[in-house]
Amino acid sequence: MEVEKIILGIDPGTNLMGYGVLRVVGSKAEAVALGVIDLHKMADGYLKLGHIYERVAGIIQSYLPDEMAIEAPFFGKNVQSMLKLGRAQGVAIAAAIQHDVPIHEYAPMKIKLALTGIGTASKEQVAGMLQRILHLDEEQMKQHFDATDALAAAYCHFMQMGRPQTSAGYRSWKDFVNKNQDKVRR
Amino acid sequence: MEVEKIILGIDPGTNLMGYGVLRVVGSKAEAVALGVIDLHKMADGYLKLGHIYERVAGIIQSYLPDEMAIEAPFFGKNVQSMLKLGRAQGVAIAAAIQHDVPIHEYAPMKIKLALTGIGTASKEQVAGMLQRILHLDEEQMKQHFDATDALAAAYCHFMQMGRPQTSAGYRSWKDFVNKNQDKVRR
Repeated sequence: MEVEKIILGIDPGTNLMGYGVLRVVGSKAEAVALGVIDLHKMADGYLKLGHIYERVAGIIQSYLPDEMAIEAPFFGKNVQSMLKLGRAQGVAIAAAIQHDVPIHEYAPMKIKLALTGIGTASKEQVAGMLQRILHLDEEQMKQHFDATDALAAAYCHFMQMGRPQTSAGYRSWKDFVNKNQDKVRR
Repeated sequence: MEVEKIILGIDPGTNLMGYGVLRVVGSKAEAVALGVIDLHKMADGYLKLGHIYERVAGIIQSYLPDEMAIEAPFFGKNVQSMLKLGRAQGVAIAAAIQHDVPIHEYAPMKIKLALTGIGTASKEQVAGMLQRILHLDEEQMKQHFDATDALAAAYCHFMQMGRPQTSAGYRSWKDFVNKNQDKVRR
């Protein structure tokens, strides 16, 4: 029997936070949930952060993800917006930590590259590719791009999972030795 | 009987996070705890954030603060450091939100101004003033400046609490009318 894995993708923002839940069995993946947490109407910054925390914790409790993938840009317009983004990421990360969900983060470019093969792909292209791969229905495609971006982060992590962690394609030195018996001097 | 209030001050950083607990009864304040959460040895960013969350939650559970005051700079060297700072603030804020502790933030300059009367006061000057006001002992004064900075944030909030919120010095229109009977036309 193949192992099932649930991956929660998060695209944290200060006004909209996207989320997508991916169910993976072996090499097959399906979208279980897709949505956006709307923070526009909340004037108070702490109310926003509290809402992000509560909602992310709620999603974790509902879908019990094994891992969380965050879309995390490492540069932004200005220090002000980066501080706000960092806070939003921080509370989402705290919700994951509190529920013992390991966190992985991916730069937007890496996610786009993993999904479409183009690091500069548009949000439409990313959503379109997800629709094809995961057979998203019309209702799911009506969601905001922050939701599909979050699902894309989860899918990027799913693709990453299957791959060895080292750049050369080996899990460890032992793994390298095992796979390169011809290079080993005896 | 005068009401007792516990204020937790936090100075969030990515390598050291200072905290200080202030016990306030009426117009009298005393330092109950003072310390630093050392994050230097943790190489992994999530481990750091997890540790901040756990420790802040632990401090809240130990001292049951009524309010939390954060020293929060609004500008920094670069977007990278601001994102990291935002994340550290975010997890500390999440711990407060989860324990229903209201949060107040003060810019470093405001804290320095409130304590010493000089917005550009040094950390030594702030610590020295705290020592005088709160009669900190030698052991407490040996603490890192991040700890005294955190206590200073708590003290700044304590000073702020006693003051009316409006700039003119009145709590409300009714308060203004009550205090200015001579200006009221009958």
